[in-house]
Amino acid sequence: MVVNELKFPRLDLENINAYARRMNDELKDGKIGYYHLPKFGEEIIPKIASLKGKFKKVVLIGVGGSSLGVKAIYEMLNLDCEMVFLDNLDPFSIEEKLANLVFDESLFILSSKSGTTIEPISIYKIILAKFNPKTYENFIVITDPQSKLEEYAKLHNITVFNIPKNVGGRFSVLSAIGLVPLGICGGDVSALLDGANACKKHFMDGKDDTILQKAYHYATHPNAKINVLFSYSDRLKSFNDWYVQLWAESLGKKRGYKRVGLTPVGLVGSKDQHSFLQLIMEGVKDKTVTFITLKNHAPSLKVPNLTLENLSGCDFVNELSLDAVFNAQANSTMQALLSENISIDTINLDSLDEWHIGWFIYYYELLTSATGIMLGINTYDQPGVEVGKRILKNLLSKNKN
Amino acid sequence: MVVNELKFPRLDLENINAYARRMNDELKDGKIGYYHLPKFGEEIIPKIASLKGKFKKVVLIGVGGSSLGVKAIYEMLNLDCEMVFLDNLDPFSIEEKLANLVFDESLFILSSKSGTTIEPISIYKIILAKFNPKTYENFIVITDPQSKLEEYAKLHNITVFNIPKNVGGRFSVLSAIGLVPLGICGGDVSALLDGANACKKHFMDGKDDTILQKAYHYATHPNAKINVLFSYSDRLKSFNDWYVQLWAESLGKKRGYKRVGLTPVGLVGSKDQHSFLQLIMEGVKDKTVTFITLKNHAPSLKVPNLTLENLSGCDFVNELSLDAVFNAQANSTMQALLSENISIDTINLDSLDEWHIGWFIYYYELLTSATGIMLGINTYDQPGVEVGKRILKNLLSKNKN
Repeated sequence: MVVNELKFPRLDLENINAYARRMNDELKDGKIGYYHLPKFGEEIIPKIASLKGKFKKVVLIGVGGSSLGVKAIYEMLNLDCEMVFLDNLDPFSIEEKLANLVFDESLFILSSKSGTTIEPISIYKIILAKFNPKTYENFIVITDPQSKLEEYAKLHNITVFNIPKNVGGRFSVLSAIGLVPLGICGGDVSALLDGANACKKHFMDGKDDTILQKAYHYATHPNAKINVLFSYSDRLKSFNDWYVQLWAESLGKKRGYKRVGLTPVGLVGSKDQHSFLQLIMEGVKDKTVTFITLKNHAPSLKVPNLTLENLSGCDFVNELSLDAVFNAQANSTMQALLSENISIDTINLDSLDEWHIGWFIYYYELLTSATGIMLGINTYDQPGVEVGKRILKNLLSKNKN
Repeated sequence: MVVNELKFPRLDLENINAYARRMNDELKDGKIGYYHLPKFGEEIIPKIASLKGKFKKVVLIGVGGSSLGVKAIYEMLNLDCEMVFLDNLDPFSIEEKLANLVFDESLFILSSKSGTTIEPISIYKIILAKFNPKTYENFIVITDPQSKLEEYAKLHNITVFNIPKNVGGRFSVLSAIGLVPLGICGGDVSALLDGANACKKHFMDGKDDTILQKAYHYATHPNAKINVLFSYSDRLKSFNDWYVQLWAESLGKKRGYKRVGLTPVGLVGSKDQHSFLQLIMEGVKDKTVTFITLKNHAPSLKVPNLTLENLSGCDFVNELSLDAVFNAQANSTMQALLSENISIDTINLDSLDEWHIGWFIYYYELLTSATGIMLGINTYDQPGVEVGKRILKNLLSKNKN
């Protein structure tokens, strides 16, 4: 079960219904592909079955939407299979990661939606030059249908998986982008899709308006400019990173001459109580906080019944399960923030298994769509990142002449 | 060399001088200890010499200010020695990390400024219960002088290092907190202190007012509410986390009835160009951006001179060193942001060695102090985090009765 509770007032507004209709229209008109992913994904499962357990390492070459969601789910599931993420052009880390690869033991997945993103293609070239492969049996390409990269891959008999063209990069983790690497690494991809489908049904049938209420609060409340995820689990760190991209790139947009946008921040509890909490408690009131908590972590671990000389003041947690202490930390932080009238809500996951993760991922995608509709922007493009790419191309092409 | 260039207008203001005098007063009155750390630290070096290389792993038990700075420097230096950070109460990760420890091969460092922080003390108890040590030879305690933890440690002949009482947790990485674990792990602690001292001399002698100019911009400019570090190196990820604590906890404060504060965000380039950049480019104009770049990463790595069929559009980076492409990405992103009139500045480090890191750490501490003075707040306390701690204690003590 995934339970989302809003600790701020719900609105009984006619326009919540109006927004619900607009979201349903968006779903029905078929132009935004991610709404329909949970039913498409099942085609992929039989195709990857033969690859499971065949390689020691899965090397994912991809940036942004091609890696963040995969890494998020990989870390939440804590899969045994080793996945290496070549997700940055940093020369130092590329050199370090490649030094530890054995070619024959590795499956290389090159993911690029457009097929021409400069980072993954350059990293792929470095890999070709380093290993000089004779065949491309341990390569997979994931890209848009008919992209230039797909044409290249077909020339070399590289297995290709497609992302539906109308699924944006940051909404693509439940397409081949995520299902292929995670499935090969042993993740239960069907359960992931089932969870996403359950979430879709739950919120899109009109009975639970929690997502719409939350989106409305974020889109309209003057104190909701920065939206903090306070995730109480180290395994949620990369989920935070995925959320940051989804939220920032979807909702930071020009609407005519006006700049709109909500700023995402990802924190990990309980440790960031010692970092960012002071700012939320006493700083400018411009933040909402969503607490993500898990029912179970490592249920057998307890604080031992030890009294250290001079330190009996720390004994109030003795004999408690660490799970109980950890979740009580989340609770008390929540209460502290409520005492300052900060807008908060809580999402509690029974478990970090595939079903719950599918639900959780889809929840955030729907929340992003709902918020975008209410802000009156195009949630699905990213015109602002193209400028820098053009400047880069000019800069480097000039240097070479 | 560390070069900081401001790309926004400097002010020729009498009150910059006034702030410089107030900062000098703060330095001279001796109440804020971190200003004086670079000269204190040298006492520690001979004491840790005998511990170098004696243990396979250094296990640091500490949260917030007791771990963030150490982790930041450890990752920037890329030290060979393995350091394990028990920096969160997450039961799952504690169980996982402890499962991989061999007691006799590990040096355990328990760091807690107050000596009574519930997380490290509880983790320490779990370690005692798990390994049941007969002697405490492979334990070190770092804490305030005369804390209850120091008294406990002395009873068991555990080696103790002190943090000067007037050095705040988040300003303490150049005290025993950082020097002991980093020195034992093979870091050149003297060079770290030399770099910090050089930075102190450079900015506190009144000749370079860059820090004051930047602080003034942040404290007064209406578009400077969120301060982004865009760090172009994977090795700077934990530095970002250290900065987030330093900035958020120092500058988020109530000033009488007014809430003030600046919100820190840490990004890693070039990958976060595919994540957060869109929001800075087109979202609400409330962000400043500092680009952190390194002169050298892995100088030998090049993009091979390969043309892939159908993908010649990606060839403009062929034959370039990856260093050049990576730094050009930083440059072009910077130019894109300048075209939108975003306030940016750049910090370029010649190298990620101890001297430059010492300089860099100290630079951010001074910047934080300067900004705090201009905001008119107490930079060095954190009253807002105490509320949650009290609630936790009540909650758990009640549950047990």
